[in-house]
Amino acid sequence: MSVTWARGFVANGAAAGIKPGGLADLALVAAVSGAVPAAATFTTNKSCAAPVVVSRAHLAATAGRAAAVILNSGCANAATGAAGLVAAERMATAVAGPLGAGVEEVLVCSTGLIGFALPIETIEAAAPALVGGRGRSPDHATAAATAILTTDTHPKQVTRDGGTFRVGGMAKGAGMIAPNMATMLAVLTTDAQASPEVLSAALSRAVEGTFNALIVDGCTSTNDTVIVLASGEAGAPSPAELTATLADVCADLAYQLAADAEGATRVAEIRVVGAASDADARLAARAVAGSLLVKVSLFGADPYWGRIVSELGASGAAFDPDRVRVAYGATTVVEEGVGVAHDAAAAAAHLAGSDVEISCDLGLGSGTASVLTTDLGHAYIDENMRTS
Amino acid sequence: MSVTWARGFVANGAAAGIKPGGLADLALVAAVSGAVPAAATFTTNKSCAAPVVVSRAHLAATAGRAAAVILNSGCANAATGAAGLVAAERMATAVAGPLGAGVEEVLVCSTGLIGFALPIETIEAAAPALVGGRGRSPDHATAAATAILTTDTHPKQVTRDGGTFRVGGMAKGAGMIAPNMATMLAVLTTDAQASPEVLSAALSRAVEGTFNALIVDGCTSTNDTVIVLASGEAGAPSPAELTATLADVCADLAYQLAADAEGATRVAEIRVVGAASDADARLAARAVAGSLLVKVSLFGADPYWGRIVSELGASGAAFDPDRVRVAYGATTVVEEGVGVAHDAAAAAAHLAGSDVEISCDLGLGSGTASVLTTDLGHAYIDENMRTS
Repeated sequence: MSVTWARGFVANGAAAGIKPGGLADLALVAAVSGAVPAAATFTTNKSCAAPVVVSRAHLAATAGRAAAVILNSGCANAATGAAGLVAAERMATAVAGPLGAGVEEVLVCSTGLIGFALPIETIEAAAPALVGGRGRSPDHATAAATAILTTDTHPKQVTRDGGTFRVGGMAKGAGMIAPNMATMLAVLTTDAQASPEVLSAALSRAVEGTFNALIVDGCTSTNDTVIVLASGEAGAPSPAELTATLADVCADLAYQLAADAEGATRVAEIRVVGAASDADARLAARAVAGSLLVKVSLFGADPYWGRIVSELGASGAAFDPDRVRVAYGATTVVEEGVGVAHDAAAAAAHLAGSDVEISCDLGLGSGTASVLTTDLGHAYIDENMRTS
Repeated sequence: MSVTWARGFVANGAAAGIKPGGLADLALVAAVSGAVPAAATFTTNKSCAAPVVVSRAHLAATAGRAAAVILNSGCANAATGAAGLVAAERMATAVAGPLGAGVEEVLVCSTGLIGFALPIETIEAAAPALVGGRGRSPDHATAAATAILTTDTHPKQVTRDGGTFRVGGMAKGAGMIAPNMATMLAVLTTDAQASPEVLSAALSRAVEGTFNALIVDGCTSTNDTVIVLASGEAGAPSPAELTATLADVCADLAYQLAADAEGATRVAEIRVVGAASDADARLAARAVAGSLLVKVSLFGADPYWGRIVSELGASGAAFDPDRVRVAYGATTVVEEGVGVAHDAAAAAAHLAGSDVEISCDLGLGSGTASVLTTDLGHAYIDENMRTS
């Protein structure tokens, strides 16, 4: 249950033949009543893919309204030049007709390898059945959530009850997860009443502390997209209520992405407090979370805090090595910049678990931030050393 | 042959007992005639180690003169607080006496794990014999170059004839190699006549394009130091001649560091041309060189250029995806942002070699940069997943 839980949405997934072996690779999420308020955030990568270019243009043309999202896995349609843009437009057109929607009311997402031509005829051939079979059952939602996966091992879905309104969502992640999004796609649906402007502001704030506070391998992908559609069939929450519920949904999906990251065996939350500012806290938390040495240490469950202090010092945040405190879970291992006697067994046990918390108090001010990361071990290498 | 090749220098190495098992761990490089012009560049990490603080202060106190450098491996003396500063001063004092030099004329370097107390009594006990046994034979230089190693597999030494003067050098590297230095220590010696000011400017320029253009794992360490001593026993080169020869020595050592990086099986040079500026070219080259996905692809010898285009787009450099050209060695695989027909066997063969060149033409201007990187595979994980 995910994108069809909020009132007013249908979904579907299919094996169109983009991926070999009959794997699901094409998904649809649509508003039942036609175009509704919509918002999106996209990758900051200047090599952004054709579907990002097209979706951004469509949202601008409709002033923030969309009737549907079509998504494919198995091909990123990135680094594909003018032909890629044509293919992305044809992908929107392929479902706009059967849905009775305008082409610009359809948003497009793709994920997969960069640099390969999108097999658009394959998608066009599959589109009528994809649209015709749409529905609002949990199975329909799961079919959509399954069809967008790449190296993920299972679909990611979430629902949240906002009181007078509902929010549901699906996402795919795996590798290339870094601030300012990642190769991650997410589609959220809500039956809240909200203008495109309110929806856009709420989504941006929700993404900032969740998907944008998640680092898997520090690579910002070409295709990252988070889309929200609002059917307006339920209550009209305040902007703060809407933001909070969207953020809750995004946080849940972000955690699911981390836990299912390529080869990851544990998820770590890097909490920085006492920074000179929130911006400094983010710099510091991201430096620790993105550190290859820290991530490999997490794989080894190694309580070598020297790497953490070193990354804090190199982060660019204001930093005084004589003030820093570091803890693994509840076990403080560093105070005023030097190692302190501690329960080594407790620290080791915490690091050996599937969920790790590393807290860093910089002792300088009131800035705070939290970033999710994962360990990095042999499975990541195996998964990424060859693409074919 | 390295630091004793230029006239006026002696060296030595010893197993002081800092490392277990009788491994060499203490090194000395000294000018025969007492204090001579000296210069250094240090890590930018705000968690810099005690020896960095002490060496910087000593160089400032002498206005750029030094008689010797004492270096230890087996302990970084970092995150060790006030006690660490006292230990670093005592380390300088331990050789200053036997050498007949002032304490402030001795520079100090340490490398090893962070957060452990330096066993200073062990170093003090070993210092008289270290000084007493100093000499200028190749064996003495190699003993010094060996005693500074950590996870390196062999000593790194180099000599260059500048015509009227000589330069020699030794270095250690391994992990944590990133711009603005890395856990790398290097000591260079020259018999050129040069003022401390000229020497300092020449060293900074030499380091910028060499040690600071090398990325192994993106981690900037707490202890990085490059020191040069100039005995003045030979010719007086122009600043440009001195800079060029120092840069030549640093480039050779940087390549040796990359080739012996933890777990590395190949070295890759990322060349960016056609950037809007040299600064943009450095941003772009560093983004590709530092990319975990690119580095894992290099381990797999995988010609997946999509990751390169994606990193260029995410680098922050001015970038137009429709203009970029990418080549593996002599084989162009991308033109105007899209894949082009190419000799796949030639590209694959180039990537399978021990030295890889990846050229990226951004098609925007005349900015250029070159950065060395390495592949990243299972051996890096094995080496870094546990420190004990």
